Amino acid sequence: MEDQWSRWGLDLHVHLRPGAGHGLRAGLEHALRDAVRSGRLPSGTRLPSSRALARDLGIARGTVTQALDQLVAEGYLESKPRSGIRVAPQPTAAPPVETAQPPHTTLRPVRGIDLRSGFPDLAAFPRREWLAATRHIMQTAPNTAFGYRERTGIIELRQALAEYLGRARGVSTTPAHIVVCAGYAHALRLVCQVLRHLVGSAGALAFEDPTEPDYPALAEQMGHRARRIPIDRDGLIVEELTNETAVVVTPAHQYPLGVTLSPARRVELVSWARRAGGFIMEDDYDGEFRYDRQPVGALQGMAPDRVIYVGTASKTIAPGLRLAWLVLPSSLLAPLREATRWDESSVNVIDQLVLARLIQTGELDRHVRRCRARYRRRRDLLGEAVNRHLPHGRLSGIAAGLHAVLRLPADSDHEAPLLGFLAERGIHVEGISPFYHRPQEAPLAIVIGYATPAEHAYSSALSALVRALRERM
Amino acid sequence: MEDQWSRWGLDLHVHLRPGAGHGLRAGLEHALRDAVRSGRLPSGTRLPSSRALARDLGIARGTVTQALDQLVAEGYLESKPRSGIRVAPQPTAAPPVETAQPPHTTLRPVRGIDLRSGFPDLAAFPRREWLAATRHIMQTAPNTAFGYRERTGIIELRQALAEYLGRARGVSTTPAHIVVCAGYAHALRLVCQVLRHLVGSAGALAFEDPTEPDYPALAEQMGHRARRIPIDRDGLIVEELTNETAVVVTPAHQYPLGVTLSPARRVELVSWARRAGGFIMEDDYDGEFRYDRQPVGALQGMAPDRVIYVGTASKTIAPGLRLAWLVLPSSLLAPLREATRWDESSVNVIDQLVLARLIQTGELDRHVRRCRARYRRRRDLLGEAVNRHLPHGRLSGIAAGLHAVLRLPADSDHEAPLLGFLAERGIHVEGISPFYHRPQEAPLAIVIGYATPAEHAYSSALSALVRALRERM
Repeated sequence: MEDQWSRWGLDLHVHLRPGAGHGLRAGLEHALRDAVRSGRLPSGTRLPSSRALARDLGIARGTVTQALDQLVAEGYLESKPRSGIRVAPQPTAAPPVETAQPPHTTLRPVRGIDLRSGFPDLAAFPRREWLAATRHIMQTAPNTAFGYRERTGIIELRQALAEYLGRARGVSTTPAHIVVCAGYAHALRLVCQVLRHLVGSAGALAFEDPTEPDYPALAEQMGHRARRIPIDRDGLIVEELTNETAVVVTPAHQYPLGVTLSPARRVELVSWARRAGGFIMEDDYDGEFRYDRQPVGALQGMAPDRVIYVGTASKTIAPGLRLAWLVLPSSLLAPLREATRWDESSVNVIDQLVLARLIQTGELDRHVRRCRARYRRRRDLLGEAVNRHLPHGRLSGIAAGLHAVLRLPADSDHEAPLLGFLAERGIHVEGISPFYHRPQEAPLAIVIGYATPAEHAYSSALSALVRALRERM
Repeated sequence: MEDQWSRWGLDLHVHLRPGAGHGLRAGLEHALRDAVRSGRLPSGTRLPSSRALARDLGIARGTVTQALDQLVAEGYLESKPRSGIRVAPQPTAAPPVETAQPPHTTLRPVRGIDLRSGFPDLAAFPRREWLAATRHIMQTAPNTAFGYRERTGIIELRQALAEYLGRARGVSTTPAHIVVCAGYAHALRLVCQVLRHLVGSAGALAFEDPTEPDYPALAEQMGHRARRIPIDRDGLIVEELTNETAVVVTPAHQYPLGVTLSPARRVELVSWARRAGGFIMEDDYDGEFRYDRQPVGALQGMAPDRVIYVGTASKTIAPGLRLAWLVLPSSLLAPLREATRWDESSVNVIDQLVLARLIQTGELDRHVRRCRARYRRRRDLLGEAVNRHLPHGRLSGIAAGLHAVLRLPADSDHEAPLLGFLAERGIHVEGISPFYHRPQEAPLAIVIGYATPAEHAYSSALSALVRALRERM
């Protein structure tokens, strides 16, 4: 058999072994496709008759005919009257290149002690509760639940979110103003589209300085101009705003500095929005976690007609869920419809039903309460350790959230050598400079995410960090 | 108590009843927020002292102080030395408007007999299998699974898809070329972005005529020009293409006509792509369902360097999953990285892990096989019913997919009255004209989706349709 086939440059021997679920016919097709694709059977090559093939291969002629018919239908072979079956003209495939797209550098998993900000404790993921909610959905959801659903999110979830956000975050809204999104970047992209539709062209978006640098970059990619507005101890310096289309802020716990927007600035910011006709995009990424008092209510509650509120499950549950929600002012609902006119929803209905269920049953609240107590203890331990062992360091941003900022004395190492020194010891924290528009003007400080390690690993992670820092401060 | 409060225009009586989980302090805060928001307490109003408030309300002064502090922090009140606590300046909220965003008209659930195309049998949703896979994930996934993951989809799913698509659809690819998307519209949007980055500006995209009209509209919204290319009995008339950036086709089963792209046209189309430097976007929406033979392999297998393949779980499992996948030529990987540089993944990792598991365990194949057998029976019943009862009708597009086209004789009702007549009887099918660029030039035909009814309801749905059509043909 191999001798016969070698005439055609084919190595069918290998492929004709029927594998799991592959019959002889599938094996023959596979081998022929491969031979055509790889160029071993060049275009124009005339194939032996089905009779000859069947004989050579020792399989039924019908099987061969079916396989050849299939490949003719797929365009690998062509069958012309009186000239038999030939290999059809084929383009040669470019060799495949292996290039995965990992998450952004700062979000990739690291080996060792992970004290970067932006992550909750993934060991706390409510696996049991997620599974129980999924079971409930699978047992009770009507068949129509799995069809095409509302593009802004299913009503069950928007109702649950309206109630939850009103109760837990002081958001004043209705389900009609809520848009379920596939994570924060998706929400920001959508807002950029909506603002474009509103003003008929690209506008200017203001961002805090420091901030997560990907967000202004995304706004610029969407055609908007992006400005940076500095932060002081009261939060965004509102008077630096002019006539921007919108300003993106983190009022509950500035990212990454950890400042809370002061009461006076909250009012000032809303006044700016009213006066300038601008919008405030409130990124409430960790608003559920406040330790010194009950959470400060969302800015949105003060001006539902001017504030675009964004919340996410990334910090309360896990980033992998890719679940976020926008609360839009009424005046943006029509531009939203326009901007998303040809889209479908981007979020799996099962996930939406599961989240709605977790809210309705109180599981989300219980989970947030458990995490809040856990993170508060970690924050306290961090504060004590700094007080005791790093007297020249100054910890800030500790009233809320999942991270704090440690300012280092002027005679410490510069940021890069310090981070390098820590990384050599397997300790991963972030410097603050990448968050600044002009990194060279950043203060000397590191950002410590205290939520990331698993509960049992936190104390030793903290000790290792403090020990290493003592050597350099 | 009410008497005292009426001085301040407040109806605290109502809100101060502590509800589930709300203490007196929360009740007081809620009432005050509400009063400020609604304008019942106008800006500048001076509040009574905390001592007086506590006495009036009959609650501890500490509780009142805490509530007032909270509202100062949230910007509802302001506290100035020597002038006590006043209501801070407040914008008035616009009244909320109730406007949900349902799915596109043709995708909304209907009452009665649903024989529209575009839906699988939702009663066949593999609830047990989905739950079992979720359980497996919750029991075995490492914590890091729930963090930020690869933006193009997690490797577990891309590996499973590369294997599945190679085996079931003849797609020639590697995990690095696969991008997991949140449904077809998201995939098309992404391709529009990628093509823009590739050529540095908007280009021209060709679409089949007829086609789902939302897709050319989406491409135009993304800045590209959109052309329509007519279909004949061999599929897309390739020679009508000129120098488009890309052409979007449904080779396995043209949507909605149901034609299969002929072998000669497949080769011709790939030749066009090579010659013109254009790309072919292969929308393989129902490629798994072929009844007269084994599925025709994807066009992608012939020219992985020129074909952008898109598959989806919408027809094989359910549209509500919002799961689709792109297979990109190597030359588009760098433009993809550029276009999605600031994005995160849009798809929940749990769903990705579940789908990967369903593929790995063979559940997806079993599900597709079960559905294929079911849909084939339905198609056969439809064919028999038309043959027997509607001899003047001509059924086409029945070799594959979840829908067929019934051409009506020239003396039938026009489309709109016919659809109206059917709808009055509770029967929902689609006319073909909305799919055409010039609806007035469309043939007289209806599109019958035979997958949608639940299994037990199909025979009676079919009988009702045929009975009603007999009256008008």
